[in-house]
Amino acid sequence: MLLLKNVNLFSKDAETMNATNKSLAFLNPDSIAIIGASTKPEKRGYQAIARLLQDGFPQSGIYPINPKAPEILGVKAYSSVLNVDAPIDLALVCTPARSLPGVIEECGKKNIGCVVVLAAGFSEIGEEGKAVEQAMIDAGKKWNVRIIGPNTNGIFNLHKKANLVGVPDAEIGNIGLVSQSGNVTLGFITEVARKGGTGFSTFIGVGNQADLDFSDYIRYFADDENTSSAVLYVEGFKDGRKFLDSAREVVPQKPIVVFKSGRTAQGQISAASHTGSLAGSYSLTRDVLRQVGVTVVEETDNILPIAEALGKLPVAKGNRVAILTDGGGHGTIATDALVDAGLMIAKLSDETVRKLKEILPPAAALNNPVDVAGATDEDSAPGAIAVELLLQDENVDILMVTGMLGGFHRRFSETLLESELQAAKEISLHVKTYQKPVIIQSVYRPQKVEPLMHLQQAGLPVYIWVEPAVAAAKAVAEYGASCRRLQQVGDSSDITVLPEGTAIFDRAYSEGRSALFESEAKDLLRLYGLDVPPEIIIKSEQDLSKLPESLKNEPLAMKIVSEDILHKSDAGGVKLNVTGEEARKIAFQQILNNAKDYKADAKIEGVLLTPMLKSGVEVILGVTRDATFGPVLMFGLGGVFVEVLKDVTFRAIPLSKTDAAEMVEGIKAVEILNGVRGTKAIDRNALLDLIMKLSEMVWMHPEIAELDLNPVITRPDGVSIADARIILSEKK
Amino acid sequence: MLLLKNVNLFSKDAETMNATNKSLAFLNPDSIAIIGASTKPEKRGYQAIARLLQDGFPQSGIYPINPKAPEILGVKAYSSVLNVDAPIDLALVCTPARSLPGVIEECGKKNIGCVVVLAAGFSEIGEEGKAVEQAMIDAGKKWNVRIIGPNTNGIFNLHKKANLVGVPDAEIGNIGLVSQSGNVTLGFITEVARKGGTGFSTFIGVGNQADLDFSDYIRYFADDENTSSAVLYVEGFKDGRKFLDSAREVVPQKPIVVFKSGRTAQGQISAASHTGSLAGSYSLTRDVLRQVGVTVVEETDNILPIAEALGKLPVAKGNRVAILTDGGGHGTIATDALVDAGLMIAKLSDETVRKLKEILPPAAALNNPVDVAGATDEDSAPGAIAVELLLQDENVDILMVTGMLGGFHRRFSETLLESELQAAKEISLHVKTYQKPVIIQSVYRPQKVEPLMHLQQAGLPVYIWVEPAVAAAKAVAEYGASCRRLQQVGDSSDITVLPEGTAIFDRAYSEGRSALFESEAKDLLRLYGLDVPPEIIIKSEQDLSKLPESLKNEPLAMKIVSEDILHKSDAGGVKLNVTGEEARKIAFQQILNNAKDYKADAKIEGVLLTPMLKSGVEVILGVTRDATFGPVLMFGLGGVFVEVLKDVTFRAIPLSKTDAAEMVEGIKAVEILNGVRGTKAIDRNALLDLIMKLSEMVWMHPEIAELDLNPVITRPDGVSIADARIILSEKK
Repeated sequence: MLLLKNVNLFSKDAETMNATNKSLAFLNPDSIAIIGASTKPEKRGYQAIARLLQDGFPQSGIYPINPKAPEILGVKAYSSVLNVDAPIDLALVCTPARSLPGVIEECGKKNIGCVVVLAAGFSEIGEEGKAVEQAMIDAGKKWNVRIIGPNTNGIFNLHKKANLVGVPDAEIGNIGLVSQSGNVTLGFITEVARKGGTGFSTFIGVGNQADLDFSDYIRYFADDENTSSAVLYVEGFKDGRKFLDSAREVVPQKPIVVFKSGRTAQGQISAASHTGSLAGSYSLTRDVLRQVGVTVVEETDNILPIAEALGKLPVAKGNRVAILTDGGGHGTIATDALVDAGLMIAKLSDETVRKLKEILPPAAALNNPVDVAGATDEDSAPGAIAVELLLQDENVDILMVTGMLGGFHRRFSETLLESELQAAKEISLHVKTYQKPVIIQSVYRPQKVEPLMHLQQAGLPVYIWVEPAVAAAKAVAEYGASCRRLQQVGDSSDITVLPEGTAIFDRAYSEGRSALFESEAKDLLRLYGLDVPPEIIIKSEQDLSKLPESLKNEPLAMKIVSEDILHKSDAGGVKLNVTGEEARKIAFQQILNNAKDYKADAKIEGVLLTPMLKSGVEVILGVTRDATFGPVLMFGLGGVFVEVLKDVTFRAIPLSKTDAAEMVEGIKAVEILNGVRGTKAIDRNALLDLIMKLSEMVWMHPEIAELDLNPVITRPDGVSIADARIILSEKK
Repeated sequence: MLLLKNVNLFSKDAETMNATNKSLAFLNPDSIAIIGASTKPEKRGYQAIARLLQDGFPQSGIYPINPKAPEILGVKAYSSVLNVDAPIDLALVCTPARSLPGVIEECGKKNIGCVVVLAAGFSEIGEEGKAVEQAMIDAGKKWNVRIIGPNTNGIFNLHKKANLVGVPDAEIGNIGLVSQSGNVTLGFITEVARKGGTGFSTFIGVGNQADLDFSDYIRYFADDENTSSAVLYVEGFKDGRKFLDSAREVVPQKPIVVFKSGRTAQGQISAASHTGSLAGSYSLTRDVLRQVGVTVVEETDNILPIAEALGKLPVAKGNRVAILTDGGGHGTIATDALVDAGLMIAKLSDETVRKLKEILPPAAALNNPVDVAGATDEDSAPGAIAVELLLQDENVDILMVTGMLGGFHRRFSETLLESELQAAKEISLHVKTYQKPVIIQSVYRPQKVEPLMHLQQAGLPVYIWVEPAVAAAKAVAEYGASCRRLQQVGDSSDITVLPEGTAIFDRAYSEGRSALFESEAKDLLRLYGLDVPPEIIIKSEQDLSKLPESLKNEPLAMKIVSEDILHKSDAGGVKLNVTGEEARKIAFQQILNNAKDYKADAKIEGVLLTPMLKSGVEVILGVTRDATFGPVLMFGLGGVFVEVLKDVTFRAIPLSKTDAAEMVEGIKAVEILNGVRGTKAIDRNALLDLIMKLSEMVWMHPEIAELDLNPVITRPDGVSIADARIILSEKK
């Protein structure tokens, strides 16, 4: 077996990446040129300056560029950036598409690292626009100027008071936002303004991603001290593989939340009419993003709640959740939702139960969920003690507090406020001490009551509804798991291309073929250590006596080999369960005779002999080169499970062992592999070993465009590849 | 075939129901006694009076009952309701558990129709409490007093200014709310207070449901002019079948939204510790509730958005949705979410597309989703016209408007406000004209901008996020479908019990058995017209010559029949594919000989002969008598589909034809029945016919406690019941 060792599986050009990181300092600008600055209030070139001034961006750092006006809004204007006698970090370009690349040349000469291009009229309008876009990109490369957009609604960095989008009400905070839709961005901003909680650090409208793309922006967030989690609204990645490489590195430093629109065939059509982005199979996209630790969210209204939790809370060490409730309803709803979300309801230690019993009334439920049964109606102290007891319990990874925390003084008596505030302070201290995520749901969240505001300021997210709280708990648990998984990768193996493998492809290419013969495909698999049952093609009866030992004592399947006979069974060209030399001879003759009767002039290669495969659970392994994410492996159960239920998982190649294990465990019908109706579990290790070897082989051979192992028979005593098909990439 | 005709399938005692309805007028009270009225501000008996006065409930209708105080809060008090010289509609009872049933006796004497019992200490605390509760129920029956609770947080009717819960901030509106959890109720109330939109008409905390239960309350809502939709938070139904009967009648008048907590095994444990309610299989509960048209919601944060839409919008005539968007992002998100929710993206008529083209710019997307591409940035009129064009299209049942409707004046220029208001007015007129549901999502919803407020006042719900908007669209479409489906029921058949069927059960009961023999079960099925392959038990070789024609020319399966031989195959007691008289004789002798060799003293009944079943898709039909919902039918595909994937549907018996069709169509793997991998579709009509006959048979025979047809072989040319098992109910 070839082991992957000391290889950073994804990132290949770390140097380029670091260069990008550094250059993105322009997202933190001290000085901004407004190219196409205007004296007309309805123009972006005016509004941008007004906004900067209004927000308190230093006037000395604003450089309006206008061919005529001496000043705009009291700020000295220049006819060209070249006339500015100070360094400029960033330019907002408000001039039309055709003015680029001239603008970029000037910016390059002035050493401006980056331009934000608002104008539309580039690749999104078709061929003509594409040419304009390419000219701009070329200029950017020549003059070393990075481009945000074009066709973007701008960027903002609220910590720098630099709001180049001009949208009002954007609240400052720690979420970094990158979006491919202006309206969706607006939705986030108005929601935060309403709800409070957390706001934004930097926003980037990616526009056409002509130069800088999602990958670059998440690398910026990785280093940005004002960003604690990133939110990406994605209609399409320009280079998905590059994004996977970047995300894999960034995730352990900063959680990345992605909403990918265009999930359904209909949605993809709609998304394409918006941006012209490629939108591949959604389930493939979701699986490979999760593989590199990205938090994939599928409901827009859960994005902010999840980003807030990931940005604020400690990393969870597992997925066992304790629930503390002050009234039954929410405890039950939370339990249901947590179980549905795949989290574990923690089994509390005996000690925790014993200590809870000491502080709670007899009616309290002491097993998870813990229901205080009125113990906090008149004094909040027992609630805070219960929080500490649950956080202390080593069976608990995450704590969810549900009900009406912080609102007892509203519900019952204002005199309770002091006790509630004290409890809130204690809870926030416990969270710091025990470093476990605590997620709070309270029906008093909308009323912004004091105890909850205290908890929020202490870095604890508070939700009004159970569902976003559970979505947050799930995301926190999965992020913890991703961080642990990503650590494991990189220390597994060293791979080399086997020249015998390359020779197989060379022969096929030289013969002008677009696919390997089945026997070649099987030879290649054997070469890389995969278990393909032996097979031999016999041309004459004499050869039957020279069978290898591996075939002599097995019941065999015998099949005609002829490119002129496609339907072998119809031609009487198949004999099954043939045992013993005599029977093999008879079968050999019968097959040849039948074939001749079926088609007299058929060109016959011989008869293929292979052992009968013992029955088992059929699985399918497939490889495709996705247009955006590169080589990807698919796994599923055979038959209706793939065809009807689409119950498959994807992973980008190469896989880590954990990836392989998770992709098998990830199918819905996985229980079938564990044995049902009295059958034994299949040999899971053999299956995982096969997946790892397959991943390595495909990684070594870009000649493979597509591969199908269908079926692979999995049994309690091993796995066998029954059929293999390999389609070749176009020869480079 | 026995046809169901002119039978109201569920409701049996309509008279009782109507009586209940009438008596529930006490939820609309003009006069209220506060029994246990108090002079202490921390007591409910004081707070309730204070609240009534504060809200403007007529002081003349408030009757504090207190043994000593002459007046409370300036309202004349009485020592007993019997001393009040005016009619009293409702009594709020604030006295402890033990004071009931005395209180009820007094109320009965005073002719008070209903009491709201706040006290806890009844069945929820165990045996002792159960006795107290029963005494109270008995008193209620004796004195003709209905009971709300006990162990309830109260009721309110905001249109009557009667808030007996005392919760602040409850906004008036048209949602009727019934809840089994005080905290969950609080969540709804605080959310409405924050969001606006719609509020509440009547609230009832069901408490222990000792007397009045969910069924009674929905019947009240059916007649209440202030309620346009009902929301129920349910932990458990006391009598699920009664609820189904009531809901079936109420739904066509008023939509009912149910959130059922305790979905998962863990959640059920948690729910039980809260209320002691029975919580059955969740998927069964969900399916039978949907069968009677209840809108089952599974996320608490979707409950209010859905209830608002159902209460306000016209009934949808189908599920084809048009999407109108002012910017790509939301159009794509909405399309994805609508498709995922099972709705259809409408195919617009050529005429609509042509007319849209006239009013929208060239960049606009004219096929659904329709993207106005900036057409409404400076003038909202085209948006309103597009709304009318889409509503006119007969291919459109529901319209969803997404993006930033109503906020252009905020985003671009205040001068747009007038145009936006005008468009809002026109849109609300179009909705009235065309009577199709219009659902609006706008990122400016949180800012309560004027045009959106106008639309909301005109009865159009507006959502900030796409997901609740789509959940609302789905609910509206399903409610329309339910109304149509419920209309169809009731005109299908007349059923009678067949005495031969009863005789089969009588024999089994008389022999003290708890199950039918397989042959009896099959006879019963044949009796009710179900297709069970013929079978015959042969005791001697001579009998072989007297085979019925149906068996003579078929390949047969032959099996030993002996209660002493359970593992027939192991005993050599099974022969398959036996064809022809000679072969049958040989097989008969072999089977008997093998059986004797296997177990010399086995008592042998004979050899069973039945035709070999042609292979097909195996399905399972099962019947159970659910503890709360009564007889229920289950359908699923055989093997792993039921066992591993739990891919089954349930319907309460008796089923309508539409129920049968929907329960088959409702399994996830339904495509398998349509033929996959080159196979033909199974005979769906034969399967539906089987389901209907089974439903009728079970409805006629309460003797059947459980039934399993496993497997039923379905093929393109029919269906065959291969095995049947019937467990008997306990004899009455």
